[in-house]
Amino acid sequence: MAKNAIVGQSGGPTAVINASLAGVYKACVEQGADCVYGMCNGIQGLLQKNVVDLSEKLPTSLEVELLKRTPASFLGSCRYKLPKLDSDDTTVYETLFAILEELEIAWFFYIGGNDSMDTIAKLSEYGRRIGSDIKFVGVPKTIDNDLMVTDHTPGYGSAAKYIATVMKELVRDGLVYDTRAVLIVEIMGRNAGWLTAAAALAKGDDCEGVDMICLPEVPFDVDKFIADIDELQKTKKSLVIAVSEGIKLADGRYVCELAADEVSADVFGHKNLTGTARYLADRVGAALGTKTRAVELSTLQRCASHIASDTDIEEAFMAGAAAANAAADGQTGVMIALKRLSDCPYQCVTEAHDIHAVANLEKTIPLEWINDEHTDLLPAFHAYARPLIHGEPSQMYVDGLPRHIYMK
Amino acid sequence: MAKNAIVGQSGGPTAVINASLAGVYKACVEQGADCVYGMCNGIQGLLQKNVVDLSEKLPTSLEVELLKRTPASFLGSCRYKLPKLDSDDTTVYETLFAILEELEIAWFFYIGGNDSMDTIAKLSEYGRRIGSDIKFVGVPKTIDNDLMVTDHTPGYGSAAKYIATVMKELVRDGLVYDTRAVLIVEIMGRNAGWLTAAAALAKGDDCEGVDMICLPEVPFDVDKFIADIDELQKTKKSLVIAVSEGIKLADGRYVCELAADEVSADVFGHKNLTGTARYLADRVGAALGTKTRAVELSTLQRCASHIASDTDIEEAFMAGAAAANAAADGQTGVMIALKRLSDCPYQCVTEAHDIHAVANLEKTIPLEWINDEHTDLLPAFHAYARPLIHGEPSQMYVDGLPRHIYMK
Repeated sequence: MAKNAIVGQSGGPTAVINASLAGVYKACVEQGADCVYGMCNGIQGLLQKNVVDLSEKLPTSLEVELLKRTPASFLGSCRYKLPKLDSDDTTVYETLFAILEELEIAWFFYIGGNDSMDTIAKLSEYGRRIGSDIKFVGVPKTIDNDLMVTDHTPGYGSAAKYIATVMKELVRDGLVYDTRAVLIVEIMGRNAGWLTAAAALAKGDDCEGVDMICLPEVPFDVDKFIADIDELQKTKKSLVIAVSEGIKLADGRYVCELAADEVSADVFGHKNLTGTARYLADRVGAALGTKTRAVELSTLQRCASHIASDTDIEEAFMAGAAAANAAADGQTGVMIALKRLSDCPYQCVTEAHDIHAVANLEKTIPLEWINDEHTDLLPAFHAYARPLIHGEPSQMYVDGLPRHIYMK
Repeated sequence: MAKNAIVGQSGGPTAVINASLAGVYKACVEQGADCVYGMCNGIQGLLQKNVVDLSEKLPTSLEVELLKRTPASFLGSCRYKLPKLDSDDTTVYETLFAILEELEIAWFFYIGGNDSMDTIAKLSEYGRRIGSDIKFVGVPKTIDNDLMVTDHTPGYGSAAKYIATVMKELVRDGLVYDTRAVLIVEIMGRNAGWLTAAAALAKGDDCEGVDMICLPEVPFDVDKFIADIDELQKTKKSLVIAVSEGIKLADGRYVCELAADEVSADVFGHKNLTGTARYLADRVGAALGTKTRAVELSTLQRCASHIASDTDIEEAFMAGAAAANAAADGQTGVMIALKRLSDCPYQCVTEAHDIHAVANLEKTIPLEWINDEHTDLLPAFHAYARPLIHGEPSQMYVDGLPRHIYMK
């Protein structure tokens, strides 16, 4: 019987999820896998036996290097949640294990966030119950950096580098006119402010940094926000402010819900959330008579491989390769975590953790890393985040644009 | 009497307007200028004699190289239009020329777009009338690429490279789920579609490209737009569409004005233009029941020096330096234009043009470069635009982020 491996990608794309795929592939080959399959569109594709032989897609080491520099999910993704294990109907599990058996799979890898780790937890548990020998290993991935156990998640460093870079550019851009203006930049992260906090990294010898950072970890007050801006503009005309899409009032309502309450629905009856930054820009403009502009980084921030962190790319690769090694060592029901040994020099290694310590939990920014006024990050955050954005990969440009690998 | 030079920057920032400043500075020094002044916030600052000695800000060649890689306007900018020359009140001109005389200025440079060239035209004409010896030379700058006479404008190539790069990333991002979705990306350019057209450059060996491009040069029809998307989704579930913020209906109304008509004003009575992409995404979602998302590239696209085109940086520098040489040669009332000699190999040189052929005119995309369906660009556009995005500067990164020069 062959010893085959299979790997899938799940959840939202990142700049480096493909670097983890490259790591899984390379290490599986080195560990003696006969064939490494890729699931197209994750578990959802696997259920239809929609798989590819990765050796055909990655024939030489050039393709592997291109894969490490290509954003989004090379294999496609899905948002599929497996049914509960204790339900009476186990059809999905039976189908999946039948397909895995048919493909002679020994090692199963899933690269993703919380939901993906839930998938690994369920599959490894089901496998245990039926006496399967398949090893199930999770590889963490999410720009949100909200997974437990791991020091940080592959994907975060690159998104943070993108955010800090464009904030530096927007700060420069905002200061060219000698007029009053407020730019509000909306950044992803519903309940964890890690991405928004990365705006703090813009500050340095060559940049005054952003003027305020609003995180979902602490309650938000619209009137205080306006008063703070009024105060800041007394000494600085042009402000740049980073807000999380997930900032909430003390009563728990999202700020973007305020916009939905106050702005009527569109002509088709669809309630369009106006967006947090747009709502706040409108409020600030009306209250203070200053020019305002709202910018949403939107999906730009999750796939910006052109400004990826090399540390992030290499750690994503490392996590993927460590997963293959863990499976080859016989481990199952585990996720590969990143463990930081020191900040300076930055040193970080992988270790396998029981998947149950990870699945369905969410890590937010420690409150002691946020200043008392709830407007900025303290040095502890900088010490944590700065090493993650370090380093630039050698980019491959063809005809003026970054080269990607392309699934034909 | 000293032979001094003065240079200002005006209008919206770009990724390479500082490279032109570097070119003016370096060539002025080589041409024997005693002092090179920079106007803070353009003409507006000059009127208050708010100037700096550039040799103090750029003490070594490292600062000059950093300047070439720093986005936005190092000297600050303004949107100041000089009064008409034939008005009775010439106070502003008298003030300006008195300041220039006091500073012993021989050469005057203004880096900017249409309005800035209008400034050069007026100052050179006023100087002629009063018998001044000062030479006035304009240096073109605008991401919009809408200046006459010059083959293209410094600033366009970098913005185009940024747009093509992020469109490639957004196309990859959009295709990861096996579901129906339409992403509409709004790009700057009120009357000229050059920036939006750059989305066409995303297409290549490794990218299927965007699915539709909507330009302000041709009339836009919302119903046809929806019908086109409906047709496209029959063979491709996930679409990425680039629209100019300036697309107009056949009756001349901007599409974003439709949003203002149909969506009520906010609670403060301010009519908020919802944005072209947002409006269209709402309409498409309602009509076709597909998931939609709107992304505005906003100011991100005009200051993205982290993905600047090296061709653009070097041409911006070249145009600045050529302006200094033209002034030293005794030319006045001219703008430095870029003249393309050939597409392949791409060769481009500078030449001085009478400023009156430039000021207050606008260049749009030739209609014969747009396909009959008004949804894509023809090969002539690719041949024109591709060389402009070629090349990557050696970037200077410090602590994980691109390093800028900082005005202390």
